[in-house]
Amino acid sequence: MSASQELQWKGYAIHDTAKWNEFKVIDFKPKPAGDYDIDIKVEFCGVCGSDVHTITGGWGAPNLPLIVGHEIVGTVVRVGPKVEGFKVGDRAGVGAQICSCLKCSRCDNDDEQYCEQPVHTYNSFYPECGTLSQGGYATAVRAHERFVFPIPDALKLEDAASMLCAGLTMYSPLVRHGAGPGKRVGIIGLGGLGHFGVMFAKALGSEVVVFSHSARKQDDAFKLGATKFVITSEPGYDESLKGSLDLIISTTDSAAAVQWETLIPLLKVHGRFIMVGIPDEDLAAFNATVFFGNGGLFGGSHIGSKKEAIEMLKLAAEKQIKPWIEVLPMKEASRAVTNVKEGKIKYRHVLKVDI
Amino acid sequence: MSASQELQWKGYAIHDTAKWNEFKVIDFKPKPAGDYDIDIKVEFCGVCGSDVHTITGGWGAPNLPLIVGHEIVGTVVRVGPKVEGFKVGDRAGVGAQICSCLKCSRCDNDDEQYCEQPVHTYNSFYPECGTLSQGGYATAVRAHERFVFPIPDALKLEDAASMLCAGLTMYSPLVRHGAGPGKRVGIIGLGGLGHFGVMFAKALGSEVVVFSHSARKQDDAFKLGATKFVITSEPGYDESLKGSLDLIISTTDSAAAVQWETLIPLLKVHGRFIMVGIPDEDLAAFNATVFFGNGGLFGGSHIGSKKEAIEMLKLAAEKQIKPWIEVLPMKEASRAVTNVKEGKIKYRHVLKVDI
Repeated sequence: MSASQELQWKGYAIHDTAKWNEFKVIDFKPKPAGDYDIDIKVEFCGVCGSDVHTITGGWGAPNLPLIVGHEIVGTVVRVGPKVEGFKVGDRAGVGAQICSCLKCSRCDNDDEQYCEQPVHTYNSFYPECGTLSQGGYATAVRAHERFVFPIPDALKLEDAASMLCAGLTMYSPLVRHGAGPGKRVGIIGLGGLGHFGVMFAKALGSEVVVFSHSARKQDDAFKLGATKFVITSEPGYDESLKGSLDLIISTTDSAAAVQWETLIPLLKVHGRFIMVGIPDEDLAAFNATVFFGNGGLFGGSHIGSKKEAIEMLKLAAEKQIKPWIEVLPMKEASRAVTNVKEGKIKYRHVLKVDI
Repeated sequence: MSASQELQWKGYAIHDTAKWNEFKVIDFKPKPAGDYDIDIKVEFCGVCGSDVHTITGGWGAPNLPLIVGHEIVGTVVRVGPKVEGFKVGDRAGVGAQICSCLKCSRCDNDDEQYCEQPVHTYNSFYPECGTLSQGGYATAVRAHERFVFPIPDALKLEDAASMLCAGLTMYSPLVRHGAGPGKRVGIIGLGGLGHFGVMFAKALGSEVVVFSHSARKQDDAFKLGATKFVITSEPGYDESLKGSLDLIISTTDSAAAVQWETLIPLLKVHGRFIMVGIPDEDLAAFNATVFFGNGGLFGGSHIGSKKEAIEMLKLAAEKQIKPWIEVLPMKEASRAVTNVKEGKIKYRHVLKVDI
């Protein structure tokens, strides 16, 4: 009997968005195993803000019952006949995307996260078989090799978990938009994403300014590596920052936090304001003139590529970057998602499989 | 008696935004001549959409009486003792900016158009003397050498005029955002700005798609060098363009034309949507998710640097780029601004001094 046949496919599922924090264990069937597919026995799964947006219906009605979770780490237990980069027993992880068309120019150019036919790790249907993808609050996950990341030995699995979505979501825009020595980076919001933003921006050699709505997290920001902390609820907080930032990454999922007239002028010429948090609500209307004073740019960023995930994990191993996490047994998923929704966790819950 | 003393300082001025197209000739005093200042006897001045926004009060109440015009060409008649790049008799021009602090990092890095203490060519007060700057619907203009551009012999003065604002406003974002061989550029709106956009994007080696609200200018677009023309009032016009453009430059000053959900998905990964037209009204609210499918960027651009103006004029001379203009005597300024407001000119009026 192979390792794969021994796998149990069970997970903690949500059955109703009105009961978004009531998880019940279900059995599920993964997609049929393909030549490039890898089965991973899950050991840990991080709890992401996306999980909460999905199970509460904030991003639209999910397919139910649904197992969320897309910061998945564990051990490879089966590899398809054409898999080249992994073998049984390897430490491996999966992030927020689990497949793509693998044929388009985006997939060919290390932009597979922008493929127009993505399969997300959960709540997405595989086009070829119609199977609903189920996430990592589960015993096992099956993923195409392209979306499986090797975990360096120098990183603990529970530390690597939340890097695979939260970490990569910050690392990719940092490197794509030029963070590095001599650059000054602003991070709006110090949560799961923001705390990675501070650590990675610093590790890349940038100076880091943290924007937070209260003084509550100031000490944490400095411990994580920030050199300046501003409190956005204090009038005039922006005065000392005008024209001084190369890059601002907004991690908040509050649309109200995107204050165009205040934030865009903080950029240097052609500086960039990048959103990685996705608010349920629309961003406010604004006058285009706000972008004419510095030729600033506004944009979005969506997770990162496998190439970037590997670079990020290498950087984390080399610089001994350790996320601030609290590990809970997976049966406490309800407590974990509630803490995330209420902004109570500093800064990431990681669930340990207990089924 | 020097050439400077012979200069008459007269211009066609607006006295009331309610009578925005009633020009009367006034005498005016230029700022005191500085060591780096150059006096230019104006021969032609282009008529820019900015002139109309200003005299109608669309961008706020102007300082009256006001002479507008910032696409100015003529002959140097006096140079200050420290001017090095010009001598009396040179052909020279001035665009939309006439001075800056000349000391900041932006001024030092060929970003003087983004200096935080700009003096605009008209409707701006010089900080050191309090003089109101008056534009080029006039006999003469005085400008700091840094904001005076030499006009290549291969260009007719009347052809160079409208390049100094409209042309530069298109050239700068094209080169700063990567237009060139192998790139596909969209130009929204075929007017004074847009027609330069098509010609310069093509001259730089890009393929050009023109977006217009009707079929009326289709033939013109192809004559100017476009390879594709889409009519934005036709439902589904965007289907064939999804994910295909490296850069879109919107020249329209209609806020309603910025249709986030339709236009942003037309960009390639990290493609850019740059506004150069400045609507009086706010741009619409939008959901941030529109930027997550391709990591697209939205931004503004403000005229261009002297360095870019010189490059642009060289390119225009080499590629024999000739704007589509209609020259009128300056006493017909009223007709010219009315035509611009009503979108009736193809594609730029240039006024010939007649005072």
